[in-house]
Amino acid sequence: MRFTIQRDRLVQSVQDVMKAVTSRTTIPILTGIKIVASDEGVALTGSDSDISIESFIPKTEEDEVIVNIEQPGSIVLQAKFFSEIVKKLPTDQVEIHVENHLQTVITSGKSQFNLNGIDADEYPHLPQIEEDNVFSIPTDLLKAMVRQTVFAVSTSETRPILTGVNWQIEGSALTCIATDSHRLALRKATIETASEASYNVVIPGKSLSELSKILDDHNDTIQIVITENQVLFKAKNLLFFSRLLEGNYPDTSRLIPNESKTDVVVTTKAFLQAIDRASLLAREGKNNVVKLSTVDDQVIEISSNSPEIGKVIEELPSISKEGEDLKISFSAKFMMDALKTLEGTEIKISFTGAMRPFIITPLNDDSILQLILPVRTY
Amino acid sequence: MRFTIQRDRLVQSVQDVMKAVTSRTTIPILTGIKIVASDEGVALTGSDSDISIESFIPKTEEDEVIVNIEQPGSIVLQAKFFSEIVKKLPTDQVEIHVENHLQTVITSGKSQFNLNGIDADEYPHLPQIEEDNVFSIPTDLLKAMVRQTVFAVSTSETRPILTGVNWQIEGSALTCIATDSHRLALRKATIETASEASYNVVIPGKSLSELSKILDDHNDTIQIVITENQVLFKAKNLLFFSRLLEGNYPDTSRLIPNESKTDVVVTTKAFLQAIDRASLLAREGKNNVVKLSTVDDQVIEISSNSPEIGKVIEELPSISKEGEDLKISFSAKFMMDALKTLEGTEIKISFTGAMRPFIITPLNDDSILQLILPVRTY
Repeated sequence: MRFTIQRDRLVQSVQDVMKAVTSRTTIPILTGIKIVASDEGVALTGSDSDISIESFIPKTEEDEVIVNIEQPGSIVLQAKFFSEIVKKLPTDQVEIHVENHLQTVITSGKSQFNLNGIDADEYPHLPQIEEDNVFSIPTDLLKAMVRQTVFAVSTSETRPILTGVNWQIEGSALTCIATDSHRLALRKATIETASEASYNVVIPGKSLSELSKILDDHNDTIQIVITENQVLFKAKNLLFFSRLLEGNYPDTSRLIPNESKTDVVVTTKAFLQAIDRASLLAREGKNNVVKLSTVDDQVIEISSNSPEIGKVIEELPSISKEGEDLKISFSAKFMMDALKTLEGTEIKISFTGAMRPFIITPLNDDSILQLILPVRTY
Repeated sequence: MRFTIQRDRLVQSVQDVMKAVTSRTTIPILTGIKIVASDEGVALTGSDSDISIESFIPKTEEDEVIVNIEQPGSIVLQAKFFSEIVKKLPTDQVEIHVENHLQTVITSGKSQFNLNGIDADEYPHLPQIEEDNVFSIPTDLLKAMVRQTVFAVSTSETRPILTGVNWQIEGSALTCIATDSHRLALRKATIETASEASYNVVIPGKSLSELSKILDDHNDTIQIVITENQVLFKAKNLLFFSRLLEGNYPDTSRLIPNESKTDVVVTTKAFLQAIDRASLLAREGKNNVVKLSTVDDQVIEISSNSPEIGKVIEELPSISKEGEDLKISFSAKFMMDALKTLEGTEIKISFTGAMRPFIITPLNDDSILQLILPVRTY
């Protein structure tokens, strides 16, 4: 193998596939990056066996030569060193060349690295995916849907299925749901698809977070292929594979109340800041609980009390309030997490009593819903 | 105590005194910030008993009212909560008011915090310092001198005296020296003073680092007062006290060679980058050692070899080379630390053999000197 490549393109691709490489793997070869030089260009692959990422660097792009292949071939190089080295090389062009015995020479200007490589035939094969049913979604929408749901997955392995986000597809309707059983995030969107197939799968939260980090807004559309145990996201020159979680996701539809007894509309930003301040003292107590009380139709009060430190009272104007008066306690962290995902300037909070889950939605937008279970304090 | 104050000024002063507050103290009241409101303004104090910082906020500045004192008084508030609270208050004006039983009310718009305070009489007094001998130094020069020496102090407590920077003052000559016994940094400067007193003291490296962070470049000149066991740095509205380290600093003058056998001049940036790349593979071995060899009068070679990973060779043009050929090994980290403190575009490295300490200086500037002990590899 011998090729010359633009350093910046190599650095970008290495950074992308590094998202899938972990040093904590039981399969030693997965601490490496696989490099395959073919007549079409150079493909880099990283994998931690849950996530696999392939980034392709084409020979030419818009008539500009990016890679010059002198001899096709393949090698696996230690990801930790290879990624650090390419970032710091002195010149714009880099030559990579495999000599006898898998010795790989990386040359850039007067800088020359010799790395011990590993035979690429020993690298595990990526999943083979039949692309029968493909649906597509704009990149920015996909990133928004991930951001608005993935924070709510469980971080505990006691119910592994809850560490993933439930994707339900029926025709052109995609619904993403995440819950850790104390709160729930739900986001709906319309996707493009040629098929009428329906899916109900659970994608690991970590996979979606990593995917989101890699996708830049240059990619217009992401194609998605779902199989029995894998999902593949395809962007330009990028393949992102994730395994699916096994098991049945709980039916969350019954958790979401259909009616409410108290509806409050507030300004998102002022409400978020008041919760943030009230939580400054609540954070010390382990539970981080704040209390919300309706004072009258124009004012709500957020408060918190930690006897050893002090107390805080925040008064906040409510744009509207309908229904019964209410006192309710909840996790300030869950509320702030939820509020940060809502894009509107005003939100509606719908309560059905101090002991029942309540929902937060942007005003006049039913594509997103955040649900929080209150905390008993009386 | 009751006063109203501009929030941004309060936030800035709290941030400054927080540099001296640590949660790991055996004296509980030192986890607090002392607030004293007098007819002149508000003084905040933080201390960890090694460092004490007092920040003063005057009532008015350039005819603008900053503090409105309604009732003088004092209180100590938990630093962790007080600093977080003031940062997040909603309005530009903040009222702080001590009620009965040390209850302190912080009000800003519709946000009201009640904090349990501590009696300010229980707070330790700051050292009393006689200001007989004062010398002064421009802020940017002081910050440069700290940056160019403090990195070389020892981080080990086996010889506590080496965790400080040795300040030697004779008349108007200030010399700062730091060493961890494997390398040494020395910086000289001229200061303004009315006295002929001479000093030889050791200031904890940590104190100097914190001082550097607080001083912004608005402060023109810093006044310095040294006593038997304390040093006081005075800037506008700021007092910074540090204890001095006890004991005699070793005589380092004999460590610095007066003559050399090989002198090499190189471009600082290219040399730093070559060392950085060569150390990528060396870092893995615990010692982080790279080798420098003179190839001929125009070229030097930096190399490193880690049998399990690979090797790297960097060729670098030398602007000039005088004297014997040389092969020498040293810590890449020490070399990079030293190079980052040198401001010139070209540096001279003066060697007196592969086993002797060598020195790095900017070309045509003898106010700064970095010394490194080589590593034996043969």
